[in-house]
Amino acid sequence: MMNVHSKGQVAGERAHEADHPSSLVAHFGPDQPLRLDCGVDLAPFQIAYQTYGTLNADKSNAILVCHALTMDQHLANVHPITGKPGGWLTLVGPGKPIDTERYFVICSNVIGSCMGSTGPASTNPATGRLWGLDFPVITIPDMVRAQAMLIDRLGIDKLFSVVGGSMGGMQVLQWTVAYPDRVFSAMPIACATRHSAQNIAFHELGRQAVMADPDWAHGRYFENGLHPHRGLAVARMAAHITYLSDAALHRKFGRRMQDRELPTFSFDADFQVESYLRYQGSSFVERFDANSYLYLTRAMDYFDIAADHDGVLAAAFRGTQTRFCVVSFTSDWLFPTAESRAIVHALNAGGARVSFAEIETDKGHDAFLLDEPEFIDIAHAFLQSAATARGLGRGH
Amino acid sequence: MMNVHSKGQVAGERAHEADHPSSLVAHFGPDQPLRLDCGVDLAPFQIAYQTYGTLNADKSNAILVCHALTMDQHLANVHPITGKPGGWLTLVGPGKPIDTERYFVICSNVIGSCMGSTGPASTNPATGRLWGLDFPVITIPDMVRAQAMLIDRLGIDKLFSVVGGSMGGMQVLQWTVAYPDRVFSAMPIACATRHSAQNIAFHELGRQAVMADPDWAHGRYFENGLHPHRGLAVARMAAHITYLSDAALHRKFGRRMQDRELPTFSFDADFQVESYLRYQGSSFVERFDANSYLYLTRAMDYFDIAADHDGVLAAAFRGTQTRFCVVSFTSDWLFPTAESRAIVHALNAGGARVSFAEIETDKGHDAFLLDEPEFIDIAHAFLQSAATARGLGRGH
Repeated sequence: MMNVHSKGQVAGERAHEADHPSSLVAHFGPDQPLRLDCGVDLAPFQIAYQTYGTLNADKSNAILVCHALTMDQHLANVHPITGKPGGWLTLVGPGKPIDTERYFVICSNVIGSCMGSTGPASTNPATGRLWGLDFPVITIPDMVRAQAMLIDRLGIDKLFSVVGGSMGGMQVLQWTVAYPDRVFSAMPIACATRHSAQNIAFHELGRQAVMADPDWAHGRYFENGLHPHRGLAVARMAAHITYLSDAALHRKFGRRMQDRELPTFSFDADFQVESYLRYQGSSFVERFDANSYLYLTRAMDYFDIAADHDGVLAAAFRGTQTRFCVVSFTSDWLFPTAESRAIVHALNAGGARVSFAEIETDKGHDAFLLDEPEFIDIAHAFLQSAATARGLGRGH
Repeated sequence: MMNVHSKGQVAGERAHEADHPSSLVAHFGPDQPLRLDCGVDLAPFQIAYQTYGTLNADKSNAILVCHALTMDQHLANVHPITGKPGGWLTLVGPGKPIDTERYFVICSNVIGSCMGSTGPASTNPATGRLWGLDFPVITIPDMVRAQAMLIDRLGIDKLFSVVGGSMGGMQVLQWTVAYPDRVFSAMPIACATRHSAQNIAFHELGRQAVMADPDWAHGRYFENGLHPHRGLAVARMAAHITYLSDAALHRKFGRRMQDRELPTFSFDADFQVESYLRYQGSSFVERFDANSYLYLTRAMDYFDIAADHDGVLAAAFRGTQTRFCVVSFTSDWLFPTAESRAIVHALNAGGARVSFAEIETDKGHDAFLLDEPEFIDIAHAFLQSAATARGLGRGH
């Protein structure tokens, strides 16, 4: 199978910089288009991905991890751009719930993103120019369709589990709806079956911040030697506020000043929470492509499983044999527990096997990426129980 | 007293356009500086204000209304710039709780704003240039100190009531702390004694959006024939999301599309909530000055009554004779009920006469400006009871 993979170059804003030979890349040629919801057949295209662990002989131990909006495939290895440790080390690694000594773990960069999979920063083969805003608008089902093509390519018929949080959780849900026979177990975390009006509003705010930056240049910034750093940083700041809870911000920062006790009576970052946000904004623009941010937020906004089933959510899950573990966090106001409850109700109405855990925490939406012992324990227990049911022993 | 008033011109971005002879203006000369918390004596300066109704013979029927961040003194008259009806007609007018046939109602544009009071869009007399970011950073106590100078100018010793919501509510609280003997009754609505970390974060986001706009030109946009419309619109969009509740956005817009049933697969405003936000952003920049937005948000961030009383909130209110009615709204997540409860606890600990109403509504922070019958009834009853205690008859 090595012939279909190559060590790929990371796309996105760094595509013009050094080569980042970090991920495996699956190429799909003109004869294997990705059929997009918008009606376009995208071809050729490529999917960059990481794997950890070893696929067993009957290919029954594969776990697909679906990454969140601004995350990527580097779950458990040093990130090639930031140099930081893997993005989900609390959950993925040797001895972790997603045990890389036991399972074959796959994580692919979603279509439309900027870490090696085809997206708006890739070259449009029809024109020889970068896609920019000519790249077709993609959806969560499109992302999942591309992942299914990758799984096919890897020769895997049925995934032992599909796991993901936030936008990753949306993909998990979509997998169980689009390919119910290919998913033995599923763990949608801190997500929803549709994006709420408030969440669409926050995303629109972020997009408008990017587009308001003159250096965005209608999406043609690379060709003009520009980058909408300021707009993208503002978008990131807005998003970051939604990832944390009021309580977490209060605990972490409160009204504490930065390196001083008295206000400067200026527009400097007097408060710690201000410098924290500024840092979040400025560090983000170093690793993420602005157009990808537009496309991925749009995909989340469009997501609405019920709408594709005549408005009846339960119909989407009817007859599913997948084992579900739905997880929410009490202080998550981006994807509040009520959204997870709606998933559980729909699953129950569809006769699914589902467990539900609402984790008590003040850390907000971000909790799914943090070391929340109760969450880690539940993920461990769920996957262990599913592994037993799947007949996966403790060894390889 | 007519010699100290003049028909003034509205400051802010429209200062360069037509004359708006709308408000009364109180001028304070070099001998009457406004002592600011930052240590600067601001002089000369001016305060633009509106009055409604008639001051009675013993000057005991005056109500000062304190306006919110982006509101102004035009409570109950057509707005000179937008042409829209008054800003608080649900509460202020003939027969309304703040009955203009019974009370003498005053509302002054806060210092630092842009509707006729001195602010960053005014001329710095020392240089002959517009102040811009050279304008000193002002605080909520500074706003109230300027209001007290106006009240002195009007010959009013004691206000019958001080009423305001949001940033206006902060001013109400500051009045009762700074001038307890001058406030017979007070109604702080949908506010807090200090700005939370989350609220500072949203304000910092807004400021960064403005400052990220190259047309902001470090605050010198007017002199360069520019205006940071795009950045200010993004800031407004962010703020507007915080003014509404998740439930209100869901009820008003949900996931409904704009003029269509199917998505366009583009970055157009497919969803109604997107066009709503875009409209809020673009209409705001027509009436508000970007630098004023920076200054007023900063003032709110700095507000912390307890910090000025060795961290003990109750100490700030100890011995107060003012009658309080504290109001919060269940779905207000910008100033949640817990903040109002903290005010009530501190008032109780200080032995104050206080009533507290938490209004059940899904309309979020904005509810204080809307026709919420229970809120209107409570305001009416509170002021009626206070009027009786103050010996104000039903006539003039």
